[in-house]
Amino acid sequence: MELSTSPLALPFPEMPSIEGVTLRVARARYKEWDRYDLTFVELSEGTSAAGVFTQSACASTEVELGREQIKEGSARALIVNAGNSNAFTGHRGAEAVEQIMAQVSEEMGCAPTQVFVSSTGVIGVPLPKDRAREGVANVLSAQPCGWEDAADAIATTDTFAKGAHGSAMIGDTRTELCGIIKGSGMIAPDMATMLGYIFTDADIAPAFLQELLNGANAKTYSCITVDGDTSTSDTVLAFATGKAGHARIENWDSPGADAFAAALTDVCRQLAQLVVRDGEGASKFIAVQVSGANNDESARRVGLAVANSPLVKTAIAGEDANWGRVVMAVGKAGEPADRDKLSIGFGGVWAARNGVPVEDYDEAPVAEHLKGAEIDLTVDLGIGDGAATVWTCDLTHGYISINADYRS
Amino acid sequence: MELSTSPLALPFPEMPSIEGVTLRVARARYKEWDRYDLTFVELSEGTSAAGVFTQSACASTEVELGREQIKEGSARALIVNAGNSNAFTGHRGAEAVEQIMAQVSEEMGCAPTQVFVSSTGVIGVPLPKDRAREGVANVLSAQPCGWEDAADAIATTDTFAKGAHGSAMIGDTRTELCGIIKGSGMIAPDMATMLGYIFTDADIAPAFLQELLNGANAKTYSCITVDGDTSTSDTVLAFATGKAGHARIENWDSPGADAFAAALTDVCRQLAQLVVRDGEGASKFIAVQVSGANNDESARRVGLAVANSPLVKTAIAGEDANWGRVVMAVGKAGEPADRDKLSIGFGGVWAARNGVPVEDYDEAPVAEHLKGAEIDLTVDLGIGDGAATVWTCDLTHGYISINADYRS
Repeated sequence: MELSTSPLALPFPEMPSIEGVTLRVARARYKEWDRYDLTFVELSEGTSAAGVFTQSACASTEVELGREQIKEGSARALIVNAGNSNAFTGHRGAEAVEQIMAQVSEEMGCAPTQVFVSSTGVIGVPLPKDRAREGVANVLSAQPCGWEDAADAIATTDTFAKGAHGSAMIGDTRTELCGIIKGSGMIAPDMATMLGYIFTDADIAPAFLQELLNGANAKTYSCITVDGDTSTSDTVLAFATGKAGHARIENWDSPGADAFAAALTDVCRQLAQLVVRDGEGASKFIAVQVSGANNDESARRVGLAVANSPLVKTAIAGEDANWGRVVMAVGKAGEPADRDKLSIGFGGVWAARNGVPVEDYDEAPVAEHLKGAEIDLTVDLGIGDGAATVWTCDLTHGYISINADYRS
Repeated sequence: MELSTSPLALPFPEMPSIEGVTLRVARARYKEWDRYDLTFVELSEGTSAAGVFTQSACASTEVELGREQIKEGSARALIVNAGNSNAFTGHRGAEAVEQIMAQVSEEMGCAPTQVFVSSTGVIGVPLPKDRAREGVANVLSAQPCGWEDAADAIATTDTFAKGAHGSAMIGDTRTELCGIIKGSGMIAPDMATMLGYIFTDADIAPAFLQELLNGANAKTYSCITVDGDTSTSDTVLAFATGKAGHARIENWDSPGADAFAAALTDVCRQLAQLVVRDGEGASKFIAVQVSGANNDESARRVGLAVANSPLVKTAIAGEDANWGRVVMAVGKAGEPADRDKLSIGFGGVWAARNGVPVEDYDEAPVAEHLKGAEIDLTVDLGIGDGAATVWTCDLTHGYISINADYRS
């Protein structure tokens, strides 16, 4: 099945090279296709690493190993396999990953734990060790390539290549951040999954990089949803080569820490939103802004309940300002709420305030807003200061077609 | 939009009358339609009442009042309004309910709190008091009717009338249980919701009836899902007239308590399954059997995670034995699980055992099973003795059509 490009796609941005980061791609042919499906990122000595991983209780070997590796905070290489997630494959899957780590570390003269491996694609089929061995040998000697080639090579059912760029001034030094991501929601046919990577030439101590990534994740990747299905392989890794030459950022007191944190969060937000824009069957990009909650985390949960509700998502697909369905979704979130203080709006127009429909509510501007491709849905709980924004897409016939009509 | 009858519909069963229960229906014309939409159930003096209600934080006035009324445990009447849920209507909605309670209680010479009111349908529009007053006046003097008429009158977007019958021997006395229910999943266009009522001539003390209903609910209504959207009005009420003439059942030590509890659970399970069979767009009825969990509640949560997963539901709609998606859903449930002890089967055939695909797995009988309308999906977690069964339906283009293609 050939998927057409999402109507919400954005063009791949101009992105600079990052000193200490070299990209290469090769064909391992993990599936019967003729495309690059093996990505190798070489990282200079002294690169700090941080990562966030799926909460799944059935995570892949790659995720289990990554959770351990990240504790050491040091990276020299990233390998991404596309077409096979290697999840639910028992000891045979683990052997394939360990083989890759050994092969790359031997070539590079580093520790195996400095080689991070991600895999994405079909589940339950061990990654073929022979193809991996040959593919890795090829990719180690391949010519360097650009960001868009790498973004294409890590993709599976994505309909467009996804990248984002940011920069931060640290003292007088300009640092760059470049990220690539793949995913069509948390999910896709054959369990394709969200994998994201951010590279920077900034010099950040590993523990602080992890702290910053955790913070960025809470406001970005953890605030998107396509259908609430969490994959076994979701991974976001951040690598900082330190080549920019400024004094190392050790903690919040280091000069430039705030600027870098803001840039990292911005790049993560761009990447996260690109995944939603490629959500399966998506025709509308929806920002759910929640305010007046008990606290920020409560606001995020309410936002996710609204964003995951099939009734809300189908209503927006149908361009129907059905705020009753939003009330329902708020009510089921399991978070503190007061029916008689709840307000709901679309495109900046309140449809209901303080628990009752707005008198003389004019639906015309709302109907016009809902015809667009970028939808703003506002929920004010009216009980506190907590706020969060969650991004999602609508639920359409396209989603059913991709996931039910075609056998994977 | 005229919905065609669900392919999973069952014929309305033969159901006996219950002594002390008289059914009547009338036209209140809560919407622009010409059908019975107001149901009145008269209950004899001394009727015990019990109820379970939605967990929604934005519940309707009817639910809020019902939660209070049930503490007294005594009922003389039930009024059900169809076409308007009266939810999210503030004080005007509350006035309409209080008016109905006053009008009925005055006529019957009982306390207003002995009159239970449910409403289902559009949200955000206060129940029109004039139509309610006239409708109630009409229904109080209407001729008695049968179960199927009442089941039709409480329905909104349901595609077939739903009833279930059971009986229990209490000593030498045969008691009857009759139930009716409406709902097309937890959800439907315009927030139609699940309302269920069980009537019996058994003599059960209110507190014990409540205990039995809680227990039955945990194994039945709380184990169904169509799309995970919880309504603001979900209500299940049980009424026991005591007319059968046996010694009152006060607790588990009373003769017949076990038999009655079993019959009540059986009727509740039948009713709950009928709602799934009328799930919006449903083409397959799916039983998710979970075993080997830490405990029964954990098993239920895992079952609901599987049953609510859009990926699992679309895979079954596509007749695809995609057990990788089941692994994903188990992993995201947030419950204890061990990837390497997990087993998954369809129609009695294991596809994966102990964390790896079954060698020489023969998909032919599974493919045949998935072509049918009744699907068995088995998940064994392999870590404990907890078990539960959850019922759901598949996710099809029909769901999208009902909820997005037509404005409600």
